[in-house]
Amino acid sequence: MNRLEQLRSQLVGEGLDALLVSGCENLNYLSGFTGSAGFLLISPTRAILATDFRYIEQAKVQAPLFEVTEVRGEPHQWLPGLVAKVGSDALGFEARDITVAAYRKIEAALVREEVGLKLVPTEGLVEPLRAVKEYEEVKLITNAAALADAALAHARKIVRPGMTETALAWEIEKCLREGGSSVPPFDLIVASGPNGALPHARPSERTLSNGEPVVIDIGARVGGYASDLTRTLCMGEPDGRFRELYDLVLNAQLVALSGIRSGMTGEQADSLARGIIQDAGYGHAFGHGLGHGVGLATHEDPRLGPGASQELQTDMVFTVEPGVYIPGWGGIRIEDMALLTASGPRPLTHCPK
Amino acid sequence: MNRLEQLRSQLVGEGLDALLVSGCENLNYLSGFTGSAGFLLISPTRAILATDFRYIEQAKVQAPLFEVTEVRGEPHQWLPGLVAKVGSDALGFEARDITVAAYRKIEAALVREEVGLKLVPTEGLVEPLRAVKEYEEVKLITNAAALADAALAHARKIVRPGMTETALAWEIEKCLREGGSSVPPFDLIVASGPNGALPHARPSERTLSNGEPVVIDIGARVGGYASDLTRTLCMGEPDGRFRELYDLVLNAQLVALSGIRSGMTGEQADSLARGIIQDAGYGHAFGHGLGHGVGLATHEDPRLGPGASQELQTDMVFTVEPGVYIPGWGGIRIEDMALLTASGPRPLTHCPK
Repeated sequence: MNRLEQLRSQLVGEGLDALLVSGCENLNYLSGFTGSAGFLLISPTRAILATDFRYIEQAKVQAPLFEVTEVRGEPHQWLPGLVAKVGSDALGFEARDITVAAYRKIEAALVREEVGLKLVPTEGLVEPLRAVKEYEEVKLITNAAALADAALAHARKIVRPGMTETALAWEIEKCLREGGSSVPPFDLIVASGPNGALPHARPSERTLSNGEPVVIDIGARVGGYASDLTRTLCMGEPDGRFRELYDLVLNAQLVALSGIRSGMTGEQADSLARGIIQDAGYGHAFGHGLGHGVGLATHEDPRLGPGASQELQTDMVFTVEPGVYIPGWGGIRIEDMALLTASGPRPLTHCPK
Repeated sequence: MNRLEQLRSQLVGEGLDALLVSGCENLNYLSGFTGSAGFLLISPTRAILATDFRYIEQAKVQAPLFEVTEVRGEPHQWLPGLVAKVGSDALGFEARDITVAAYRKIEAALVREEVGLKLVPTEGLVEPLRAVKEYEEVKLITNAAALADAALAHARKIVRPGMTETALAWEIEKCLREGGSSVPPFDLIVASGPNGALPHARPSERTLSNGEPVVIDIGARVGGYASDLTRTLCMGEPDGRFRELYDLVLNAQLVALSGIRSGMTGEQADSLARGIIQDAGYGHAFGHGLGHGVGLATHEDPRLGPGASQELQTDMVFTVEPGVYIPGWGGIRIEDMALLTASGPRPLTHCPK
């Protein structure tokens, strides 16, 4: 069953006779269209891609399963007319993407044009489909993962004391881009010493020194699909704390990578690693979830973390990235991407740890 | 009057006793905070910056005029409590930024916790303040403009037939980044021959040839502020059409650059250039507005184009970028950034045309 049919099979259960898709990764996933402006209107029998004059030709090529229609202006200006063509009475829309301002304008236009349409907010209709990867998607993710591996190997080779975080991040980015990545899916992280205690630090002008942890969190993008990889390096002689925490985080990661199985919830997967870190007395220092799905978005379903009730399934791709962060000292994070198979996670990144 | 006081002076007129600011450029503009997750709660007497554990230290340093408070989870989980502290009855929120999903959760939490608070959608309270630049902002934009000038000069030097669009775009990006730009504010455009007919083309593997137009649209970012610059090159001998359209677009741009004055509307400014292009019979081929404000966002107020009623004011910074696009042949666009002074626009980009 193709992506469109999978989505359609859900509409009835939601009491919808059509869905407006506006989230850009969802739109890309369902239609193939990669332009930056467009909407899908999907009913049981129609599949329409609405975009403006800039993207009409591109849309026709990329989205052969869709009727491409040219629109002008914002959705409230053309949606009532388009919905009338499709004949919907209860139109779902993506509530996590449509802003209150856009919604109010659409609502007002429907009233003005006397269209008796019920707008129904929806969440998470397309995202669960995206979480389970097809063969071609895994291939692109694998390519993106290989570029990240190569860039991290390059970083290891050129890193030296006295280099700034931004200089190293830029060398890594050049390696990714010249290896074939499009613009990386997130701002690369090089966080040395105390900066590594902030999970989302930005590279700064701080210079790298011997003996301190350097967290390097990078990703490539190939054919729209992202990769995400973290290693924590130490130049020169690591101190006792580095050794202790590195071994702890690595052990937690390896246990999770070998223990995760389909049918577990995201919370159960997380607890495999969290239990080990908690037992060592560092539970408070592992302030984020164990991982997240990766695909067209860097962060997508499934979530692996406390409270994550979604069940992991075969063919999902996600990160496994426990971390420990000590304010004033730094952080240790080790992150790989894995494809969940019937026998457990199969790593897609292979960089030495 | 500082930015915060300017905003506060508007709240009363809007019937609000507090405003929740969530749009990231607005948040940065008002507070100085550059983290990727945060909210401002601004009342006549309080100014609170709410962010999570990752950004607390950064927020305290960057936003000295704000009380920094640590929050966990999504707004619906902490907003009712925070609003109670501030004592608001009518809280404005940014309707162009808050999604329907987030809004519904906040609404439900207010009902659940029996908080008698009216949520009021607002649009465009902070954006008009951002449109008029202060001295320090102009300095950063000028630096970002100089980097774009330098990268375009570099492109002119290295461009040669047989190079792909992506290769040239990457050489330009390296020049920008190594010159001191952070991640560019938009994906750089190199669009050759027919690709140039699409105003938002992405660089492709198409190779550049003699005699065809090559549209190069680039920007740098310095201290958060963007620049935006376009030139259209032709290697070898331009054909008659290139000469005719280039001269037309250049003339339209120069007339606009010399004729725009504060007090004009964005539509009047646009018509200075559009009239010339229309008179030459190419009105249909100039499918976008004449320009847009540039600052923390690449596209911000003011808009210069048909229907733009906002008046241009001294100290606004905007682009002036007429273009003509011929399907199958290509495009000509010439774009400079200018600061509006009492005597008219003063260009901030200086690359030869």
